[in-house]
Amino acid sequence: MNRQNILELLEQVRTGAVSPSEGVERLRHFPYEDLGFARVDHHRTLRMGFPEVIFGLGKKPEQIARIVRSLLPQRCNILVTRCSRAAYTRIRRVVRKARFHEDAHAASIVQDRTVYGDGTIHVVCAGTSDIPVAEEAALTAELMGNAVERTFDAGVAGIHRLLSAREALVRARVVIVVAGMEGALPSVVGGLVSVPVVAVPTSVGYGSSFGGMTALLAMLNSCASNVSVVNIDNGFGAGYVASLINRKR
Amino acid sequence: MNRQNILELLEQVRTGAVSPSEGVERLRHFPYEDLGFARVDHHRTLRMGFPEVIFGLGKKPEQIARIVRSLLPQRCNILVTRCSRAAYTRIRRVVRKARFHEDAHAASIVQDRTVYGDGTIHVVCAGTSDIPVAEEAALTAELMGNAVERTFDAGVAGIHRLLSAREALVRARVVIVVAGMEGALPSVVGGLVSVPVVAVPTSVGYGSSFGGMTALLAMLNSCASNVSVVNIDNGFGAGYVASLINRKR
Amino acid sequence: MNRQNILELLEQVRTGAVSPSEGVERLRHFPYEDLGFARVDHHRTLRMGFPEVIFGLGKKPEQIARIVRSLLPQRCNILVTRCSRAAYTRIRRVVRKARFHEDAHAASIVQDRTVYGDGTIHVVCAGTSDIPVAEEAALTAELMGNAVERTFDAGVAGIHRLLSAREALVRARVVIVVAGMEGALPSVVGGLVSVPVVAVPTSVGYGSSFGGMTALLAMLNSCASNVSVVNIDNGFGAGYVASLINRKR
Amino acid sequence: MNRQNILELLEQVRTGAVSPSEGVERLRHFPYEDLGFARVDHHRTLRMGFPEVIFGLGKKPEQIARIVRSLLPQRCNILVTRCSRAAYTRIRRVVRKARFHEDAHAASIVQDRTVYGDGTIHVVCAGTSDIPVAEEAALTAELMGNAVERTFDAGVAGIHRLLSAREALVRARVVIVVAGMEGALPSVVGGLVSVPVVAVPTSVGYGSSFGGMTALLAMLNSCASNVSVVNIDNGFGAGYVASLINRKR
Amino acid sequence: MNRQNILELLEQVRTGAVSPSEGVERLRHFPYEDLGFARVDHHRTLRMGFPEVIFGLGKKPEQIARIVRSLLPQRCNILVTRCSRAAYTRIRRVVRKARFHEDAHAASIVQDRTVYGDGTIHVVCAGTSDIPVAEEAALTAELMGNAVERTFDAGVAGIHRLLSAREALVRARVVIVVAGMEGALPSVVGGLVSVPVVAVPTSVGYGSSFGGMTALLAMLNSCASNVSVVNIDNGFGAGYVASLINRKR
Amino acid sequence: MNRQNILELLEQVRTGAVSPSEGVERLRHFPYEDLGFARVDHHRTLRMGFPEVIFGLGKKPEQIARIVRSLLPQRCNILVTRCSRAAYTRIRRVVRKARFHEDAHAASIVQDRTVYGDGTIHVVCAGTSDIPVAEEAALTAELMGNAVERTFDAGVAGIHRLLSAREALVRARVVIVVAGMEGALPSVVGGLVSVPVVAVPTSVGYGSSFGGMTALLAMLNSCASNVSVVNIDNGFGAGYVASLINRKR
Amino acid sequence: MNRQNILELLEQVRTGAVSPSEGVERLRHFPYEDLGFARVDHHRTLRMGFPEVIFGLGKKPEQIARIVRSLLPQRCNILVTRCSRAAYTRIRRVVRKARFHEDAHAASIVQDRTVYGDGTIHVVCAGTSDIPVAEEAALTAELMGNAVERTFDAGVAGIHRLLSAREALVRARVVIVVAGMEGALPSVVGGLVSVPVVAVPTSVGYGSSFGGMTALLAMLNSCASNVSVVNIDNGFGAGYVASLINRKR
Amino acid sequence: MNRQNILELLEQVRTGAVSPSEGVERLRHFPYEDLGFARVDHHRTLRMGFPEVIFGLGKKPEQIARIVRSLLPQRCNILVTRCSRAAYTRIRRVVRKARFHEDAHAASIVQDRTVYGDGTIHVVCAGTSDIPVAEEAALTAELMGNAVERTFDAGVAGIHRLLSAREALVRARVVIVVAGMEGALPSVVGGLVSVPVVAVPTSVGYGSSFGGMTALLAMLNSCASNVSVVNIDNGFGAGYVASLINRKR
Repeated sequence: MNRQNILELLEQVRTGAVSPSEGVERLRHFPYEDLGFARVDHHRTLRMGFPEVIFGLGKKPEQIARIVRSLLPQRCNILVTRCSRAAYTRIRRVVRKARFHEDAHAASIVQDRTVYGDGTIHVVCAGTSDIPVAEEAALTAELMGNAVERTFDAGVAGIHRLLSAREALVRARVVIVVAGMEGALPSVVGGLVSVPVVAVPTSVGYGSSFGGMTALLAMLNSCASNVSVVNIDNGFGAGYVASLINRKR
Repeated sequence: MNRQNILELLEQVRTGAVSPSEGVERLRHFPYEDLGFARVDHHRTLRMGFPEVIFGLGKKPEQIARIVRSLLPQRCNILVTRCSRAAYTRIRRVVRKARFHEDAHAASIVQDRTVYGDGTIHVVCAGTSDIPVAEEAALTAELMGNAVERTFDAGVAGIHRLLSAREALVRARVVIVVAGMEGALPSVVGGLVSVPVVAVPTSVGYGSSFGGMTALLAMLNSCASNVSVVNIDNGFGAGYVASLINRKR
Repeated sequence: MNRQNILELLEQVRTGAVSPSEGVERLRHFPYEDLGFARVDHHRTLRMGFPEVIFGLGKKPEQIARIVRSLLPQRCNILVTRCSRAAYTRIRRVVRKARFHEDAHAASIVQDRTVYGDGTIHVVCAGTSDIPVAEEAALTAELMGNAVERTFDAGVAGIHRLLSAREALVRARVVIVVAGMEGALPSVVGGLVSVPVVAVPTSVGYGSSFGGMTALLAMLNSCASNVSVVNIDNGFGAGYVASLINRKR
Repeated sequence: MNRQNILELLEQVRTGAVSPSEGVERLRHFPYEDLGFARVDHHRTLRMGFPEVIFGLGKKPEQIARIVRSLLPQRCNILVTRCSRAAYTRIRRVVRKARFHEDAHAASIVQDRTVYGDGTIHVVCAGTSDIPVAEEAALTAELMGNAVERTFDAGVAGIHRLLSAREALVRARVVIVVAGMEGALPSVVGGLVSVPVVAVPTSVGYGSSFGGMTALLAMLNSCASNVSVVNIDNGFGAGYVASLINRKR
Repeated sequence: MNRQNILELLEQVRTGAVSPSEGVERLRHFPYEDLGFARVDHHRTLRMGFPEVIFGLGKKPEQIARIVRSLLPQRCNILVTRCSRAAYTRIRRVVRKARFHEDAHAASIVQDRTVYGDGTIHVVCAGTSDIPVAEEAALTAELMGNAVERTFDAGVAGIHRLLSAREALVRARVVIVVAGMEGALPSVVGGLVSVPVVAVPTSVGYGSSFGGMTALLAMLNSCASNVSVVNIDNGFGAGYVASLINRKR
Repeated sequence: MNRQNILELLEQVRTGAVSPSEGVERLRHFPYEDLGFARVDHHRTLRMGFPEVIFGLGKKPEQIARIVRSLLPQRCNILVTRCSRAAYTRIRRVVRKARFHEDAHAASIVQDRTVYGDGTIHVVCAGTSDIPVAEEAALTAELMGNAVERTFDAGVAGIHRLLSAREALVRARVVIVVAGMEGALPSVVGGLVSVPVVAVPTSVGYGSSFGGMTALLAMLNSCASNVSVVNIDNGFGAGYVASLINRKR
Repeated sequence: MNRQNILELLEQVRTGAVSPSEGVERLRHFPYEDLGFARVDHHRTLRMGFPEVIFGLGKKPEQIARIVRSLLPQRCNILVTRCSRAAYTRIRRVVRKARFHEDAHAASIVQDRTVYGDGTIHVVCAGTSDIPVAEEAALTAELMGNAVERTFDAGVAGIHRLLSAREALVRARVVIVVAGMEGALPSVVGGLVSVPVVAVPTSVGYGSSFGGMTALLAMLNSCASNVSVVNIDNGFGAGYVASLINRKR
Repeated sequence: MNRQNILELLEQVRTGAVSPSEGVERLRHFPYEDLGFARVDHHRTLRMGFPEVIFGLGKKPEQIARIVRSLLPQRCNILVTRCSRAAYTRIRRVVRKARFHEDAHAASIVQDRTVYGDGTIHVVCAGTSDIPVAEEAALTAELMGNAVERTFDAGVAGIHRLLSAREALVRARVVIVVAGMEGALPSVVGGLVSVPVVAVPTSVGYGSSFGGMTALLAMLNSCASNVSVVNIDNGFGAGYVASLINRKR
C-alpha cells in the first residue's frame, strides 16, 4: 500500500508531472514507517531462530490458545511462560505436539530444530526453590537452538558441589546463574569461568530478602567482572540474552 | 547534503536512468534522518519563542561563554541555569546585555520580547528557602514570553497568607507551586483554583525530608486532581511545562 | 442562611441600631465560609463541564447507585472509576443510559455533550497491560468535553510503531503517556512533540518494578523538559490535568 | 510472698539472728521486682481512668471474650480494637452492655464515667476513608474520660471546610489530625491552633502512597512546630497520647 | 487599613449610599484576611510566652543580627537555633544580654521570665552525642517558661542509670526522650511514666543507622502507647510540643 | 567409583607403568570432589548432634513425610519448621514418636538425647506475638542438645518483667532475644549480660514496622556491643547459632 | 552512701525503733540502684579481661589522652578505635607503651596479657579495602585475650585462595568474615566450617552498594545457618562478640 | 613445594613403602589447592588478551606506579581506571608509552595489539555527562582487543539522532548503552538490534535520580529482552562483559 504511494509519486517524477525538487518535498511528508517496512523484513530474517513468546500470566487459556494458533504458520518455535496446566490442556487441542514443562511453568511447541548456538549454555542454580526460574531460562535457550547443560542445587554454602561441576562450567560459552537469598552464587561462578555470566536473582527468601531485591543488589555489586544482571525471576530474559551471546554469526 | 542525494536520485528517475520501482528500493536504504531534516525545520518554527537553555552546573565559565556566543545568532532568548557569578562575568564579556539573577542562580540574555503566553503564570512558594527554585521557574516562564506573578513565602502553616493571594491565583492560567519539607502546598492551592497546578518539590528540609523525596511523594499523592509533578528542584522544568500550557495556539 | 445573617446586620447598620465600627467588630466573628459561599457559586460556574467523579473502589453497588441518583439533577456528566460490573448493573436500574467501559473498569452517564476542549488530547500507552489506565485517562478527558485520540501498544522497544503515530502526536494539544516497567515512553514522546506531556506510571511489571515505582522515578527524571507526572495508575488524574490544559478560556 | 521474705529477714534483724550489715548483703540478692510490687500498686492508682485495651486483630472471638471477662472486675473501661462483629457478638454474651462501634471497628464496655480530661479533644480527618482510624482515636479518648469533638472529611483541597471548623479547633486542648495520601492536613491545622497536634498517618491511598509512608514522612516534616506523629493507622495511640495531654493533674 | 475599608463601606450603608443587600455583595469581594486580622491579634495574645525563633542554619551573622534587632521590641524571648559562635558575637553587638549555649549550638535573649508551664519537663538522652539535640529541646522549653530537668547519657544498654532517674521521671508532666542508633530509649521511658513522651530521633550512628532513620522508625513503632515522635534532630520541635503540653490553661 | 580411579592410578605407579612424576600430573586432572568425599565423612563426624532440618513451607505433607522417612536411619534428631498440622499427621504415620509443637509451628523427632551444650541457652521474647519465632529458636536449640530457658512476654515498656528474669539471664551461656515492632529488647538485655546475644527481629507490627525491617535495623544499631543479628523471623537460625556458641569443645 | 542508708534503717530495725513490717514499707521507697551497686561489682568481676574502649571519632587528641589517663589505673587493656595519628602522638605522652595500629586506625595499651580465649578466632576478609575493618576486629579480639589468625584478600571470585585456608578455618572456634560489595563471603565460609560465623559488612563499593547496605542484606539472607551479622563497618563489635563466644567459662 | 609432597608420596608407592590403598587415604588429606595449581596455569592461558586492571581510586600515584612496574613483564595490556593526571605523570616515569585518557579518567599501557574480538562493539551514550563512563567502557574493550565504535549524546528525547546511527548499531556484535537520568536508552536500542545489549546506569542526574538508582531500576525493567545490566558507573564491567561476548572462540 505505502510502497504503492511512493511508486506512484516516482511515476509522476518519471513522466515529469512532478519535478524532482517537488518530489523531495512530497517525500518528506511520508511517515517513516512507509519506507521502513522492507527493513522490517530484513529484520525478520535476522531474527530467524527466535521463538515467539507469549507471557501467559493473566491471560485466559482461551486467549493463549488463540494466540498460539495465529503464530503456528510462522513455523518458529513457540514458548508460553507462566503457563497453567489448564492453559496447556487448551493449547493441546490446537496443536497436539505441544509439551508442558512442569518445572518451568511453561509450555512449548517445537517447529524448528536448527542449531543456532555456537557452544553450550550452562544453567546453574543455588537451591531447589530456584529451579522454576532456572528451567525457564534453560527452556528459552533450548527453544532458541542451543545446547544446554544444567547444574542445580549448588548453593555457595556447599561449595564442593559447585566445584564438582567446574569442568563442565569451564567448557560453556555462557553461564546463567540463578539464585535467591543472598545472591552470592554468580560471584563464585564468575571467578571460575572466563565467559560471560548472566545472573538472575529470584524472589526466593523471606524477611530482608525483599522479594529478590537483596539478591539483585548483591549480583550488581559482584566482585567478578564478567557478571551482568537481569530482573528478578526473569528466567526468560536470561535465556534470551545468553542465546544471543552464544549465537553463531 | 542528504536532500541533495534524494534530489539526484529523483533526477535519475526523471531521466529514466533509474526506474520508479528501482527508485523505491533505493529510497528504502536512506536512513530516516535524511528525509526527516525538513521536519526538523518545521519543528524549529513550531518551537519559536523557546529559549536555548544551558545547564551551567559542572561547566566552566569559559565553556558556558563559548556556548552562549554560538547561540547568539539564533536571536532567541538564552537561559543559563545554575550559573555562578564568575560564569556570568565571563558571559558579559561576550554579550553586554546579559543579566544575572541572584535569586535564581541564573543568567539570561533577552533577544526576543514577543508575548507567547495566553494568560498569567502564577508562581507560589512555601518558604524563603524555596525561592531559588521558584525564581528559576519564574525566569524560565518569562524568557518563554509569559506574564508571571509571584506569591512567595506562603506556607500552609500560615494559611491566611495564601488566602490573601487567592484572587490573583484564581486569575492565573497555570499555577506553579514550589515547596520543600512536607510538600503540602500544591494540594491546598490545587483546591483553590480550577487550572493546572505544576508542583515542584525542593530539597529544602532535614532529617526525614530525604533531600526532597518526602515532598515529592506528598505531591504525587495530592488529593487535588489538578496537580502534576516534576523532579526535585526542577524549577526550569516547571517553568517550561507551564509555558507550554499557557502557550497561544 | 448566612447571607441572611449578614443582611440583617447591615440592616441594623442602616437603621443605626448598630454603629459602623461595631459592625466591623461583629463581622470579624463571622466565620470565613459565611461570606465565601457566593464565591463557591462563581466557582461552580467556572467549573462547568467538570464531571462528578465517584471513586468506586471499596464502595458497595448500592452506595454507588445512591450517589449517582443524587448527582443526576446537576445535569453534568458522571464518571464512576474502578467500577465493577455488578455496580454498573445496579446503576443502570437508576439511569438507563449509563454505559459500562470494560477496558477502563469504569461507568459513565453522559448528560452534557458540550465541547470544552480547544484541541485534541492524545493518549499513548506502552503495552496492552497499560490499557486500563490509559482508557481511564481517555474516558475522563472525553467526559470533560475533549476530542481524544489513542495510540496503544507503542512501547519503546518497537520504536517504529510510535514513529508511525508521529503525525497525529504532533497535532495534539496535550499528550498523555501511560507506561509501566521502565517508564521510558514519556521521554521519547516528549522529544517528538512541543506540547505538554502528562506521564502516568502504571503498576505493570514484576521484580524490581516495585509496583510502578521504577516507572514513576524514570518519568520524573525524564530528559525531556515537557514532561510532568501524576501518581501510579492515576489515569483519572492524567485525564483531568490534560483536560484543564486543553480547556478553552 | 516476696514481701514475706523481706519481712522474715527483718524479723531476724530485729531478733539479732542477722546483723544489720549482714542484712544489707542479703537484701542485695533480692531481685528488684520483689521490692517493686508496691510501686506497681501506686502506679495503678496513678493510672486510674485508663482503659484496659485488647488488640483484637488475630485473636479469636472466644479468646477476646475470655480476656474481657477477666478484666471486668477491675471496674475500668474496656476497649477492644480491630474487633469483628463476630467477636462483638461473643463479647455480648459475657457482658450485655458492651457496645459495637461499626466505624471504629471496635467494641467498648463502659464501667467508669468519670471525667478525667481538662478540655476538649478535637479529632479532624481528611477523607471518608480515614474515618475508621479517626473514630478509633475518638473512641479511645472518650473511654479515657474526655470530651471529644469531630470534624470529618475536611481535606486540604477544600480548605473552606476546615476553616469553618476553626472556631471549634481553637477551643480544643489537643487536636488529633488523621490523614492519608499526602498527609498535608496536620500542617494546615497546626498553623490554625496554638495547642499540640497529634498527627496520625493512614494507609489510605494507592501507588506511591506506600501504605501510609508518604503521609507519615510528610507529617514528620511538617512546617508547623506543634505537630508530633504516631505510627500509620495508630488511632488508638493518638487517642491515648491526646488523653494524657488533656489529663487533669 | 483594611479595617478602614470595611468601616467606610458600613458608613455608606448607614447613610444609605449603599443598600444592605448591595453591601453584602461588596463584602463578598473583600479577601478573607481583611476581616481576619483581628483574629490574628487574639491569636497573638493566645501565643503570649512563645519565643520568636530564628533558624540560624544558612543565614549570615549579619542577617541574623538584623532579624534579632527587629524582634527585640516585641519583648518576647528570642531563640536562634543552629547558631555559630561568629553569629553570636555579631548578635551581642546588638543586644548585650544575649547568651550563647555551646552544647545546644544556639543563642538566646531572655526578655520574659514568666512561668507559663504547669509542671516539669524532663529531657532524657541516650548518649553524649545526643546532647546537642537534647539541649536544643531543653533550651526551647526554658525559653517558653518551663521548669526543665535533664537526665543525660542514660542509654538502654545500661538500664540502671535510667532506673536511678525514675523518681524524677515519674514527677514530670512531659518527658522528652532523645536517642540515636537503635532509638530504644523512648519505649523504656514510656513504660516507666504515665505522661506523654515526645521522642526525638537523632542522626547519631553509622552504617545502617541511615542518618537517624532507624531510630525514627523504631520510635514510631514503640510498644509504649504514650510515645509520639518528631523529625530527626528536631530538638526545637520537641521542646515546643512539650511546652504546649505543659502549658497552664 | 572415584576412589577406584585413584586406586588404579596408584596401582600403575606401584607396578611402574606410570612414573611418580607422571602420576602427579594425572592427579591434577581429577576433579576436587573425587578426593574430597572422605572429608565430607570427617565433616559428618564433626557435625554429630546436628539435627536434620526440613523447611516445611511450600512442601506437601506427602513430600515432607518421604524426606523424614529417608532421614530416620541417620539416628539424628529431625526438625520440620513451618510445619502444618496436616503435615504432622502425615509424618506420624511414618514415625509414631514424632511430636507437634503448636507454638513453634514445627514438628520434631527425637532420636539423640546426648547433651552437646555447655551451659544454658536463654530465649527471651518481647510480646506474645513473637512466641512462634521464639519457640522455633528454643526448639532448635533443644534438638541440638542444649538446656533451654524461656522468658516470654518481657517487652521493654514493662522493664520490671525483664529485670525479674535477670538472675536467670546472667547464668546463661548465650541469650537469644526475639522482638518485633521497635526491636529495642536486645539492647536492654545486652546491657544486662556479659555473654553473646543473638537477636531475631520478627515481622510483628504494622504501619512503618515494614514487616520486621524496623526491628532489624534497630538491632543492627544496638548500643550494646555483644549483639549480633539474624534475618527477620529466623528463629531456626538463632537457635542454630546459639547452639554452636554453647557447644562443648 | 546508699549502703549507709540501708544500714541505718536495719540498725533501727534491730533496736526496735522501726518494726519489721514498717521496714519493708520503707525499703520499697529506696530506688533500685541503691541496692544494685554490689551487683555492679560482681558484674565488674565477671567482665575481667574486657578492654576499655574509647570511640575516637569526633574526639580531640587532648580529650582522648585525658580519658586514657583516667583508665590506666584499672590495669585493663585499652583500645582507641578510629584513632588519628595525631591522637596517638598525644596518647604516647601519657603512656609510653601505647602502640599505633595503622591498618586498624586504632591505638592500644596492653596491661593485661592473660589468655581469656578457649580457641582461635579466625578473621577473613574479602578485599584489601576491607582490611581496616578486619584489623579492628582482630585487634579487639587480641586485646580481649584471644589467639587470632588472619586470612585476608580472599574474595569469592577467587575461591581457591579461600580453599587454601580451609584447614586453618576448620580449626577455629569462631570465624569473623569481613566483606563489602556483594557480601557473599560469609555464606561460603559458613559452608566450610561448623562454628559460629560473625559477618561484618563494610561500606566498600560504589553505585548500588549503598554504603554497605547491599552487603548487609546479603549477609542477613545467608543460606548458611551459622552466620549472624553486626552493623556496617563494625569491626569492633564483631571482635567483641567473637571474644565472648570464645571465652573460657 | 606441595607438588614435592605428592611426588614423594608417589615415590613411596612406587617403592612399595606405601600401598596403593594407603596412598589413596593419604591423598585425601592434601588440601585442594595443592593439586589445583596446574589448573590455575591453564586458566591463565585461557585468559590471554585480558588486561591487568588497577582500580586507581584511593591509591596513591606512587602505589599505582609500583603496581604498573610489577605488571609490565607479563606483556599484557594494563588499564588504570579512575586515574588522576598526577598518577599518570608518575606512571610515565615508569613506562614512557603510557597514555592518558582524559575523558575516561584512565591511563593505559598497550603491549599486546592482537585482535581478540570477532565483530564490533558499539558504545552508545545518552548525554555528554555520561561520556566518562562510556569512554571507560570503550577503552576497556579496546585494550581487550576489540574494534569499538562510538555514538555519543544520543538521548531518547531526540530520537532521530539515535536512528541515524541505526545502520552502525545493526552491524555490531554487542552494544553497550550508557545512560543516567531515566535510563530509557537501552530499551530503545534494544528494540533496534538483535544482539546483546549491556546497559550501564550512570550517577548522572539530580533529585529523584538517586545517584543512578532510577536509571538502574529502569534498565532492569527494560521491555526489550536482550538487555542485561551492570552496576552504576561501572564502565569497566560493561566493557569487560562485552569483550567476553565478542571474543573469538
